[in-house]
Amino acid sequence: MCPSVVDGEKEQELKDLANKLRIHSIRATNASNSGVFEIPLSERWRSVSRHPTSCCSAAEILSVLFFHEMRYNAENPRDLYSDRFVLSKGHAAPVLYAAWVEAGLIPEKELLNLRKIDSDLEGHPTPRLSIADVATGSLGQGLSCAAGMAYTGKYFDKADYRVFCVIGDGESSEGSIWEALHFAGLYHLDNLVAIFDVNRLAQSQAAPLGHNIDIYRQRVESFGWNAICVDGHDVTALCRSFQLARTVKHKPTAIIAKTFKGRGIPDVEDAENWHGKALGSIAENALFEISKRIKNVTKHKLSINPPKSDGTLSAIDFSKIHLCDPPKYNIGDKVATRFAYGTALVKLGHSCDRVIALDGDVKNSTFSDKFRNAFPDRFIECYIAEQNMVRLAIVTRGNVQFFFKVGVAIGCATRGRTVPFCSTFATFFTRAYDQLRMGAISDANIKCCGSHAGISIGEDGPSQMGLEDIAMFRTLPGSTVLYPSDAVSCERAVELVARQPGICFIRTSRPNTPVIYDNNETFSIGKSKIIRKSDEDEVLIVAAGVTLFEAIKAADELKDKGVKVAIIDIFSIKPIDSEMLIEEANRVGGRVVTVEDHYAEGGIGEAVAAVLSDFGTVQVKRLAVNALPRSGPPDALMDMFGISARCIVEAVERLL
Amino acid sequence: MCPSVVDGEKEQELKDLANKLRIHSIRATNASNSGVFEIPLSERWRSVSRHPTSCCSAAEILSVLFFHEMRYNAENPRDLYSDRFVLSKGHAAPVLYAAWVEAGLIPEKELLNLRKIDSDLEGHPTPRLSIADVATGSLGQGLSCAAGMAYTGKYFDKADYRVFCVIGDGESSEGSIWEALHFAGLYHLDNLVAIFDVNRLAQSQAAPLGHNIDIYRQRVESFGWNAICVDGHDVTALCRSFQLARTVKHKPTAIIAKTFKGRGIPDVEDAENWHGKALGSIAENALFEISKRIKNVTKHKLSINPPKSDGTLSAIDFSKIHLCDPPKYNIGDKVATRFAYGTALVKLGHSCDRVIALDGDVKNSTFSDKFRNAFPDRFIECYIAEQNMVRLAIVTRGNVQFFFKVGVAIGCATRGRTVPFCSTFATFFTRAYDQLRMGAISDANIKCCGSHAGISIGEDGPSQMGLEDIAMFRTLPGSTVLYPSDAVSCERAVELVARQPGICFIRTSRPNTPVIYDNNETFSIGKSKIIRKSDEDEVLIVAAGVTLFEAIKAADELKDKGVKVAIIDIFSIKPIDSEMLIEEANRVGGRVVTVEDHYAEGGIGEAVAAVLSDFGTVQVKRLAVNALPRSGPPDALMDMFGISARCIVEAVERLL
Repeated sequence: MCPSVVDGEKEQELKDLANKLRIHSIRATNASNSGVFEIPLSERWRSVSRHPTSCCSAAEILSVLFFHEMRYNAENPRDLYSDRFVLSKGHAAPVLYAAWVEAGLIPEKELLNLRKIDSDLEGHPTPRLSIADVATGSLGQGLSCAAGMAYTGKYFDKADYRVFCVIGDGESSEGSIWEALHFAGLYHLDNLVAIFDVNRLAQSQAAPLGHNIDIYRQRVESFGWNAICVDGHDVTALCRSFQLARTVKHKPTAIIAKTFKGRGIPDVEDAENWHGKALGSIAENALFEISKRIKNVTKHKLSINPPKSDGTLSAIDFSKIHLCDPPKYNIGDKVATRFAYGTALVKLGHSCDRVIALDGDVKNSTFSDKFRNAFPDRFIECYIAEQNMVRLAIVTRGNVQFFFKVGVAIGCATRGRTVPFCSTFATFFTRAYDQLRMGAISDANIKCCGSHAGISIGEDGPSQMGLEDIAMFRTLPGSTVLYPSDAVSCERAVELVARQPGICFIRTSRPNTPVIYDNNETFSIGKSKIIRKSDEDEVLIVAAGVTLFEAIKAADELKDKGVKVAIIDIFSIKPIDSEMLIEEANRVGGRVVTVEDHYAEGGIGEAVAAVLSDFGTVQVKRLAVNALPRSGPPDALMDMFGISARCIVEAVERLL
Repeated sequence: MCPSVVDGEKEQELKDLANKLRIHSIRATNASNSGVFEIPLSERWRSVSRHPTSCCSAAEILSVLFFHEMRYNAENPRDLYSDRFVLSKGHAAPVLYAAWVEAGLIPEKELLNLRKIDSDLEGHPTPRLSIADVATGSLGQGLSCAAGMAYTGKYFDKADYRVFCVIGDGESSEGSIWEALHFAGLYHLDNLVAIFDVNRLAQSQAAPLGHNIDIYRQRVESFGWNAICVDGHDVTALCRSFQLARTVKHKPTAIIAKTFKGRGIPDVEDAENWHGKALGSIAENALFEISKRIKNVTKHKLSINPPKSDGTLSAIDFSKIHLCDPPKYNIGDKVATRFAYGTALVKLGHSCDRVIALDGDVKNSTFSDKFRNAFPDRFIECYIAEQNMVRLAIVTRGNVQFFFKVGVAIGCATRGRTVPFCSTFATFFTRAYDQLRMGAISDANIKCCGSHAGISIGEDGPSQMGLEDIAMFRTLPGSTVLYPSDAVSCERAVELVARQPGICFIRTSRPNTPVIYDNNETFSIGKSKIIRKSDEDEVLIVAAGVTLFEAIKAADELKDKGVKVAIIDIFSIKPIDSEMLIEEANRVGGRVVTVEDHYAEGGIGEAVAAVLSDFGTVQVKRLAVNALPRSGPPDALMDMFGISARCIVEAVERLL
């Protein structure tokens, strides 16, 4: 074994800091306790999830990471050169906040505002705080994001920063953890360290593997990782483990830390039924006992390791991303939009070296392989290790790995390091819905392209048909949803989303469809195109993709019958072009047909009906949660987000 | 090692059968080749995915399973006593169809109709065919379903049938595979055998682990399985492996079969770039070469092992499921609907011993723990093994394991063995969207309850708030979506969904809300309740859950101001009560306000707007894919499912 890497004084400081993190966590969770006594005891434990015990098991881990191992800029947590930290077990948020209190960024008194509506110290970390690159709280997702950050550090930034991710033992049952382990092992992400906080107890009873850390070791080793088992409350042993991790090359390291839930709290440590409970009246005694162990009760003496900067990293100018060549098609050419997607992606790649692509091994179908051929280093998919003649590749079919890849993409995009384009069959994004949802909360800047939309893919059958993708992407707060119908508009859609912040979705189709726009036609997010219009129109048809061409056929047929119809190519489904829809619907006398290769629920038809129902004789005012919400008391939230009685009164009064 | 378990004659028969399966697969995929030559060569490989090569790697596996190892009723594939078979690598459907041709169920000539619109031999297996209990084709899901079947066989049916699942090596990168492995290991499902068809090649290049079957062995062993590595083209070795699997108790067995993609096809076997391609012009030579190896070219001689029946299993009478006690509340009592959910579940449990519950370790929050306390044997969550004092339990927090549990639930429900109720926080069902989508294609009979809907959960923050669950469940074809607002309606909702086929979703809320209905009030799927009504109403408010009580408050306030409003408790969001909504909207002069604790997209507001926009001066007719689709040519599908030009013409004409 290595010799101890810290001297006695430092060891004591790290122990003291761990106990200070415990004290902060207990105080913060107790302070946020207002309201707890209104709730029946039987359900109190969960409905007011506070988690001081989950914080206490990780106290030494965070103490050693933040005050010994990690290199970071405590004044600017999003410094490009700093090590990254992801708290995958997001419910232990207070201990993370506490670490930043000790690091000097967060004022100590702010901790007492935990979970209040006017504080950014939410129940689970979100990027409202500069200390969180990604939101966590839906378990099992942190390691994917961390792996994306590590991949970016190693292969795109080629920088020294490292990535640390603390994972709960409960969440290690999540498949997404195993996908991330698989990915990081195959890519030799030796700048990534995962710390398993094996505190034995899950919510209401023991986690599946209890304290059997050897099973964790076997599993992570079989997934290509270096594994170190350690007493997670021994700061010296932790320091040594991290030092070891630094020396291991070509493999990520997993530190399997045996810990105890509620460590240090008398009668609570390692006891069941304390998950998610504030200590309440026993807090005082706990604080007294923990304080007794602290030698240096004043400000700690340890300095924080500054990041290693070599001056090579700079902010990326995303405004420069554009199609280096305009679309080059002839009207009437038959080109699948998925093909145009690949073409446009290559053009973007030439304009900015931080455009990257990820695919779920359908690159020959989504045509992201064009990008891979042009920029192999910026395509995250396969890795070939000649050693042992084992060909290692993250190439598998269909949706494989995909939902996890969204997590990687979110990680790659943090701190503005890349603009990731993820492509797969539209329907396989359903596998990533929870990751996309958390991506929206993370303010993630990722671009998704779903090909093979709808029943027009044909023989492969329903399992491969995207029929709910529009509904799904529309629900993400702040998302953009574009549905180009021809190659020209598709190339422009790709350019538009690259420059649009947030989660953007482009829906492409399998069949070849005719080019209908001039190469110099301009497109905008939030704007539709009217492609048929006359003074005698009696009905408006709204369509996109394959159904737009059905609409054109129908219009021709109707014209022969003496009926003229207008046609809108909706293009931008979210935001929707309310202005044009309302104007055109009124112009034709209020008769509208929508047609889409998607289920009715949440699709184009409902989006259009929703807009138009604001203005008919039947008027429907729809109140719903109108922005990405946050932590706070239910009543205040309902008012803040537009669904309280007050809002209803206002809506009714506006209708009258 | 065991002695050979088959004699020379049988060995030859099994070899012959494997080659016959190859021949059928090649013929079927070639016959479905119409149209292939219209597609540019560069994209032909994928867009017409046929997969004879993926069939050939599994030919000996299926030959040995269907004609040596499995016990089943070839005339009635859904026989209750028969062994179950799940083809997780659903794209190899032709070899499954071929096995049933040899078993005598499917006429040989039907194979030539593969993927045609008037044949049930779809591109990927679906339960349109009696030979498939679950749809596969979205990879990585089959083992979860198989584990649910095995759990049901071992613990509910207590029957002898066994479950076999063939998994591709590509899809074994999926996290859901590892969750299923973890689950089956913890539950000691020794009636489950997973066969990994390690044919080395994924879609366009080698699978991550190539032919390194020892890594598979290490991984599955670390997940608690018995692992057997075998040459997957050696029928004798396969027979021996299955025999060994039968003798292993308390552990499931994984057979890691080293195979070659395209086995037996000259110049194609083990070659890259043949994934998903029909053989076309080289088929004739391939058939010739494979035929040469068949000794018994006529009908095979092997008889199929009949299932072991002990007469104990019978069809379950789901119509008898009911609340054994009616709701017992007083109007004005404050009770959370999630609490009433737990109460009702116990009452159902008393009426039928095949009602089971699964939870994602939030049972104390969703109140499914009431069911666990009443019927511990029917609650799938934890398992305690005293051996080695390791406490094993599938208990982890939040969404952990959940998306996989939907897969287990689907498996438990097959052949009508149970009615599974799955509960977790509403938002964590997003993790299972792809499984739910495939569940709808599988015609799965599962009941989901999402608690903690919306921002009214308060301080836990956005990661825990269900704000897209209504949109998600609405998109599932054939789904039912209920949103009870008080305890009485919630208990009735639980009873209603238990008797309603298909995927049903009940949305419950965290806060306590007042009881507003009499205990003897009746509720129906597709029917709303009007809870405020007067002759002077000027506006209609449509709400549910916490917002219903906001609406009541608003109505009281408006009344003081001299404005009367009607209020509808929507209760049944899908199917929606169009009749009442239209009638009431018209009655109040067409002024409607909807209010929901959910994002606007795909929620109550859009559903209501969609219904009402059919009847205003602005009329919106929405054409969308109007049923669960199927395999077929794109044009035919678009017409069949209501979005072709013909349908548009009809819609326009109806509007005029």
